Amino acid sequence: MKLASLKHGRDGRLVVVSRDLTRATDAFIVVPTLQQALDAWERYAPALEALAEQLEHGSVPSFRFHEHDCAAPLPRAYARRHAAAWPGYPALLRQAAGAEAPAGAAGNALRHAASDGFLGPRDPLQPDDPAASLDLAAGLAVITGDVPRGVAAGEAAGAIRLVTLMAEVIRHDRLRPDGLDLDGAEAPALVASLGPVAVTPDEFGEAWQGGSLHRPLRVSRNDKALGCPDAGADLGLSLVALVAEAARHRSLGAGTIVSAGPVSNRGIDGGPGRPVAEGGAGYACLAEARAAEALTTGWARTPYLTAGDRLRIEMKDAGGHSIFGAIEHDVAG
Amino acid sequence: MKLASLKHGRDGRLVVVSRDLTRATDAFIVVPTLQQALDAWERYAPALEALAEQLEHGSVPSFRFHEHDCAAPLPRAYARRHAAAWPGYPALLRQAAGAEAPAGAAGNALRHAASDGFLGPRDPLQPDDPAASLDLAAGLAVITGDVPRGVAAGEAAGAIRLVTLMAEVIRHDRLRPDGLDLDGAEAPALVASLGPVAVTPDEFGEAWQGGSLHRPLRVSRNDKALGCPDAGADLGLSLVALVAEAARHRSLGAGTIVSAGPVSNRGIDGGPGRPVAEGGAGYACLAEARAAEALTTGWARTPYLTAGDRLRIEMKDAGGHSIFGAIEHDVAG
Repeated sequence: MKLASLKHGRDGRLVVVSRDLTRATDAFIVVPTLQQALDAWERYAPALEALAEQLEHGSVPSFRFHEHDCAAPLPRAYARRHAAAWPGYPALLRQAAGAEAPAGAAGNALRHAASDGFLGPRDPLQPDDPAASLDLAAGLAVITGDVPRGVAAGEAAGAIRLVTLMAEVIRHDRLRPDGLDLDGAEAPALVASLGPVAVTPDEFGEAWQGGSLHRPLRVSRNDKALGCPDAGADLGLSLVALVAEAARHRSLGAGTIVSAGPVSNRGIDGGPGRPVAEGGAGYACLAEARAAEALTTGWARTPYLTAGDRLRIEMKDAGGHSIFGAIEHDVAG
Repeated sequence: MKLASLKHGRDGRLVVVSRDLTRATDAFIVVPTLQQALDAWERYAPALEALAEQLEHGSVPSFRFHEHDCAAPLPRAYARRHAAAWPGYPALLRQAAGAEAPAGAAGNALRHAASDGFLGPRDPLQPDDPAASLDLAAGLAVITGDVPRGVAAGEAAGAIRLVTLMAEVIRHDRLRPDGLDLDGAEAPALVASLGPVAVTPDEFGEAWQGGSLHRPLRVSRNDKALGCPDAGADLGLSLVALVAEAARHRSLGAGTIVSAGPVSNRGIDGGPGRPVAEGGAGYACLAEARAAEALTTGWARTPYLTAGDRLRIEMKDAGGHSIFGAIEHDVAG
């Protein structure tokens, strides 16, 4: 089942989207918002699944689905926990900065992150400072049901209701090499966005394995490929394991978002990933491209985001069809 | 106006509470939950104020108000930003641990903190580990309306809708001297609770000055005073200034909680505060009492929370009447 929230008020208007993302039907007759659906999933999910089935068969009124009408699937959520789950990214940034790993830091540390106002997947970025070193870090997000404290890793998979794309807007000029803000405590993301469509894991088929989604995440800037790293490779902890980790000391409420990113693949030699132009998987954020350049050539030539740039993030299935639709942000001038 | 949420479903049932906290009337005819009221405050606040007026005059049906029926005023919120706004607390803990201030750390750094499930004000604490060094850090929380990015400090005051008590449950055995979790990124509070009643700033009279609430916060353990530090004294930034700081790089959505604590007063000599037994203002958490003991006597004799302990947090007005009701947690065995 694929779900989206069209822009409407603070919480959007829930729609069921066809598998090929071309058509949608209103979910209002079942439940008006995704948060309400998540609050009583056992009650609403069967009726939403039935709607999805009818939509595929054309037996329910539908309308053309436009990704640019979408808010984030959850326009605001009660919780987000984020991890740099692909350790290649923080390792490379630290290496380029000549910094050591912070004392006692585990690679899969989850931080509390802002969830009170996600950007829509096609909203423009409005930098508050034109001199900011602005980056977009692309990854994945899972949306959970209620998860009891101390859930076993084996049971956490059943708590994942939906999966979608995720991008964090980061100001690298406010970031220290240890990943903290210059003020020492603030999480570094200014704002984040989610993919247009959130998808139940049963839709992924064999691509959903070992608690992770094994497909390349395609990131491009101004229609030029920046990277297509495999989201199922080189993770420290799987998405399912991250959910269990997030619930280790406290229960998670329905609608909690556990996000991970940026996706980062190692090179064939086990070292930093190579650029797309050199046959590598490339990068899911500008900062990692810059760090790799700085280490190999001494010069970080990929610029940070500037006015007029467009960054696009998408994941396709084995048949080449978009799974979640695309996050696409233009940087406003 | 005083508002509370009785335990009911995920978001509580909004009631208007009398000034003396003895009676309440259902707000359902106006708006069913506090979050919905905050989402359209200009629309609902006048009708809620009218209900409060009628309640004082006995001209509306009412029932006896019991604090133990309360959920947190916002049982779940879309955002919480927390600061150790009284710098005496982190400074004393670092001093006792022989640790330096973390490089580049500002005293008023706001961290994202969990807001997806507040404890009710009389709920028992259920430690997941009997060996945990468990503490309750008492402070204040403001609940905001929508706050635009970059709001001027002078305008932030108008965005504060409600004020209430706040307590964070902290495991000090998982905390480093620099205030971070042992894993290096996780915010240290396991869970937090809010006072039974949330109060609009106009109720405070002269106690609301310079963006802060100038009343002692009374904290007791098993009916013995731990402290009564003045919440209006020795702050790094006022509550209003913290709201402006939280909105510096991103807008805040209606219902954002900006919390601060633990309250900590300096001694008359400008050094660490003294215990209540020695005529001082005492402490709003056990860890600060222990740090002061360790520094003055070499022995932290105040134990952390253990099964059977009761911790009570309350603030009274100049006439000796409880403003917010009391947070009172029993530690389960």
